[in-house]
Amino acid sequence: MASRREFLGVTAGMLASGAVQAQKTENLPPNVPAWMKEQGEAVNWRPYGLPVDFEKHVVKFKRPSVMPTEGVSLTPFQHLHGIITPSGLVFERQHGGVPLIDPAQHRLMLHGLVKRPLLFTLEDLMRFPSESHIYFLECSGNTSRDWRSPVSRNVQETHGLLSCCEWTGVPLATLLEEAGLQPQAKWILAEGVDASGHTRSLPLAKCLEDTLVVYAQNGEKLRPEQGYPLRLIVPGWEGNVSVKWLRRLKVADAPFMTRQETSRYTDLMPDGTAREFSFLMEAKSVITHPSGDHRLKGQGFHEISGLAWSGNGRIRRVDVSTDGGASWRQAALQEPVLARALTRFRFPWQWDGRAAVLQSRAMDETGYVQPTRAQMIALRGFNSRYHYNAVQSWGVAANGEVKHVQV
Amino acid sequence: MASRREFLGVTAGMLASGAVQAQKTENLPPNVPAWMKEQGEAVNWRPYGLPVDFEKHVVKFKRPSVMPTEGVSLTPFQHLHGIITPSGLVFERQHGGVPLIDPAQHRLMLHGLVKRPLLFTLEDLMRFPSESHIYFLECSGNTSRDWRSPVSRNVQETHGLLSCCEWTGVPLATLLEEAGLQPQAKWILAEGVDASGHTRSLPLAKCLEDTLVVYAQNGEKLRPEQGYPLRLIVPGWEGNVSVKWLRRLKVADAPFMTRQETSRYTDLMPDGTAREFSFLMEAKSVITHPSGDHRLKGQGFHEISGLAWSGNGRIRRVDVSTDGGASWRQAALQEPVLARALTRFRFPWQWDGRAAVLQSRAMDETGYVQPTRAQMIALRGFNSRYHYNAVQSWGVAANGEVKHVQV
Repeated sequence: MASRREFLGVTAGMLASGAVQAQKTENLPPNVPAWMKEQGEAVNWRPYGLPVDFEKHVVKFKRPSVMPTEGVSLTPFQHLHGIITPSGLVFERQHGGVPLIDPAQHRLMLHGLVKRPLLFTLEDLMRFPSESHIYFLECSGNTSRDWRSPVSRNVQETHGLLSCCEWTGVPLATLLEEAGLQPQAKWILAEGVDASGHTRSLPLAKCLEDTLVVYAQNGEKLRPEQGYPLRLIVPGWEGNVSVKWLRRLKVADAPFMTRQETSRYTDLMPDGTAREFSFLMEAKSVITHPSGDHRLKGQGFHEISGLAWSGNGRIRRVDVSTDGGASWRQAALQEPVLARALTRFRFPWQWDGRAAVLQSRAMDETGYVQPTRAQMIALRGFNSRYHYNAVQSWGVAANGEVKHVQV
Repeated sequence: MASRREFLGVTAGMLASGAVQAQKTENLPPNVPAWMKEQGEAVNWRPYGLPVDFEKHVVKFKRPSVMPTEGVSLTPFQHLHGIITPSGLVFERQHGGVPLIDPAQHRLMLHGLVKRPLLFTLEDLMRFPSESHIYFLECSGNTSRDWRSPVSRNVQETHGLLSCCEWTGVPLATLLEEAGLQPQAKWILAEGVDASGHTRSLPLAKCLEDTLVVYAQNGEKLRPEQGYPLRLIVPGWEGNVSVKWLRRLKVADAPFMTRQETSRYTDLMPDGTAREFSFLMEAKSVITHPSGDHRLKGQGFHEISGLAWSGNGRIRRVDVSTDGGASWRQAALQEPVLARALTRFRFPWQWDGRAAVLQSRAMDETGYVQPTRAQMIALRGFNSRYHYNAVQSWGVAANGEVKHVQV
């Protein structure tokens, strides 16, 4: 890893005392600017705070779709820092719009191969012991454009179907214990109460391992577009199985083969067969700074920073290349490195002012290494829409412009 | 710790299949409710998401004050879960209102006993290597009402000058290295660009240890009331030294004895002397569920849950009492347990339906134990306004009502 000395000198000369003198315009220190001469907005001017207007460009972006209630909106990682995604910017994948549900009227039904079918109010559920975990959530279709389109504009377009929040809820295992499983129980249907009647089948083992019935996100109750008042979180698995607006769990001895696991969310392989129930999100990473739409202001030191994650547990290592994959050096991982959460990596880079191609490559604690684009295509071909997790490339031009490239 | 079996039976009988039949009203499962029969709100209906209207009571609460731009607003922990405080609900302590600052016009000046005085734009600052950390932030006046007032309404009133976010910024040590310290350097003045000209002196050692110049909070840029576009975060120290809207850092050989460290933010001791520069926030904890304004619905299992934190590092242990401190049992700590962050603790409780007094007591990794109210008053008397960290009590009445009590 590069030493601390590599970044010193970022400002030397440029910002020495001569520059301080030269910049004595009205609002710059040591002058007293206009906004220091009058009282600001009142305490609690917004009892529920919002971003400042100067940041109003930092929003989710909706892809064009046929129906307004079907499609995706994407998280703007080119503007984000750290690992937590603020709830207002968490991506959306909606199949039938966002229902606005009266929590007092909402119920969760647990039935099928159980000894005692149960119907829970929210108050009932919140009586059970809860857990809080920081987990990523990624749509299985994240980065699917990279598979076919040569270039996208920015990381929001390529990797924006991804977020990471602190989720609080009740382990599904606890509710299943309360209901009592019958011996034949092997799969569980989860049904959302949206207009699409979104339904997925989950194997019992994952339901007992770490699946949560969640009511809170980043400290507060779920946002409506994130499943208010109740959703599943199935850690490390494709987002669509973390069923939102959860109203029903039915225990059975086989998967239900719902529309979402026959017409969609299967992986068409090069030989024409379809891979079903490919739940796991494999290790993946992307550089967010610098990335598309950014422009480097001059050569010298720049920190390369990005995100890595794996549905299989913790990220063990991230390598960064600035020459399109010809050579690699290890990045630093920001603590805490949590299982099935985003991990922020950082890499010190001295840019020589010439064209460069930036890449990152994640390895998780199982030893799995994120594939190159060539490896990905060799394995999966071009038939599939889901589970593309290849190394991503950003081209830096000599003028500092950063653009998506495929190498 | 109580075993898993203690909470089983929460719903048994109450919610068995007979109950399912009895509740077949229009919107309850297995019926299809109204909001499942029509398309919901469009994808990206709010490009920046907001809480649902059903949760609009979850807001900061402003204490009455003489000037609208001076005072506090408090975080509603009675409604929150986990350890992350959403940015919209982070408490405020304002001395001259909230300035709305054009980030393009903002500068940070670093001068005094340095070899090279520097003036940074935000772009300059973001060129340096950053770090992200989850840290609590607590006003030194948090819980000061508990010292004198017999009872408050809820945990928002008693402990609401507290929050916990993921902060991203540049280590102050890096900027000081860039400027070069002169040998006499011992203290640093931090000045905000609000109308109060808020200023505090910080010892150099803390500035070099872990103090951050922060531009992002929970992933996105700082909120205006939290210091947009730039603030200090001084981990584990009283909130007012984490100067917001940071415009100036001046290095000196002695503290500056500003108004905020002479007239305020000193601790008047029982003998009439004043304790100065009492920066550290000692270990503390509070039960948030159940707490004031909550009402237990029936005896049997209830999870007791709350928050613990220490400016000295990690929380090692939290004990809970349900009999007003006569006996204590160890609570479970939710991972990750991070240094100088909030830690969520959970404790399984079987309520017998009789009056009870709930308390929590934190111990940090240094072995420091949160004092009782009697110990606190014996040590500090009643002259002081700051750094009250005694054990907190919630009374549970036989009818389930939870109220603040002093024992």
